[in-house]
Amino acid sequence: MNLKRSDLTPIELYGANTGNCLRVSIALEEAGIPYIVKLMDLRRGDQHRPEHLARNPMGRVPTIVSQDRDGQTLVLSQSNAILFYICDLTPGVLLPVDDIIGRARVLERFFFALTDVIGPSHSAFALRQINAGDSSAERLDRRSVEALTRAEAFLKEARFIGGEDFTLADIAAFTITIALRRLIDWPSLPHMQRWFDELHARPSIANGLRAFGHR
Amino acid sequence: MNLKRSDLTPIELYGANTGNCLRVSIALEEAGIPYIVKLMDLRRGDQHRPEHLARNPMGRVPTIVSQDRDGQTLVLSQSNAILFYICDLTPGVLLPVDDIIGRARVLERFFFALTDVIGPSHSAFALRQINAGDSSAERLDRRSVEALTRAEAFLKEARFIGGEDFTLADIAAFTITIALRRLIDWPSLPHMQRWFDELHARPSIANGLRAFGHR
Repeated sequence: MNLKRSDLTPIELYGANTGNCLRVSIALEEAGIPYIVKLMDLRRGDQHRPEHLARNPMGRVPTIVSQDRDGQTLVLSQSNAILFYICDLTPGVLLPVDDIIGRARVLERFFFALTDVIGPSHSAFALRQINAGDSSAERLDRRSVEALTRAEAFLKEARFIGGEDFTLADIAAFTITIALRRLIDWPSLPHMQRWFDELHARPSIANGLRAFGHR
Repeated sequence: MNLKRSDLTPIELYGANTGNCLRVSIALEEAGIPYIVKLMDLRRGDQHRPEHLARNPMGRVPTIVSQDRDGQTLVLSQSNAILFYICDLTPGVLLPVDDIIGRARVLERFFFALTDVIGPSHSAFALRQINAGDSSAERLDRRSVEALTRAEAFLKEARFIGGEDFTLADIAAFTITIALRRLIDWPSLPHMQRWFDELHARPSIANGLRAFGHR
């Protein structure tokens, strides 16, 4: 996976001055990967224009557009997925590769920052945007459900969340679907229903749930 | 990194019936890695007993204890770091290895589930635990800051968040530190201050911030 990109088309980075975008620009700098910033004015609504929605149907930033040696184009969203892609392009620069224990320790700290620190702060930002006073927890749950229903589009395209194979992405999506299932409008989400039923019947899921007495 | 673990000591998985723990048990099942559940009663406070705090100073679950072939012991927390460790033990099972574009797509979906869906839901759970009515956003911000100050201990041990090298973990921690910096009690956190100053002076950080006009 060690692609030397210096002779390639620079990665296009669509974004703005937000934490999610800055994490990506810093990682590209650190990795020495050529890139071009496509600065978007979020207040003006650049992220909702048709040309950006074609890259990112959710109208979010950051999004990158990357050409590989074979001329394949990768359009990638989710700042953290972009960080891992940068790690894959430049193995060993931002994440140990062969030292499995050192790698686990770095990822432990990375996810500490991501889920313990950034997560609640992003939730606070979302609460402020929707001007929440009371029933804040319910608003956040509804926000989770709204996000989750985007998976219907993924599951219309493919058998699992990340494609035709069962992956980490299914595991992440499955347990939160269980937690939120009473808030989900199942009749409008036939592909999610099919996926949820299939996963429930999957031995690893059944055994994994049983491991902690979940019923 | 392809360690066949079937001839090894099973992984000990300390946890309870929570989404974070179930994601790990499902992944272990899917990967076919032998493991032993060490069921903890969170209401009784098992996670705060000295024997668990020795494994996980934050008193959190899940935590795994894993022995490798060389007899080295890895004690690992953060459910998502554990998922990546499982991927490393069984390459290709839960995450593509050589197909860099397929891998990026799976990670895009994984982080969709983690940050867009699970993140707000965990925040809602936290709000309910602290019985938040109003000023919910401020409470969540304080929660982020409290989590962030744990990095003081990491930075007392080593130069960077994940050890002696600059990694993904630093990038994740740095931008949220900028966002929360006015809420941080800097005089009580000398190692974080040293780290923050060093990172500010790092060319990749300065250039990465400048990419989006951040000052």
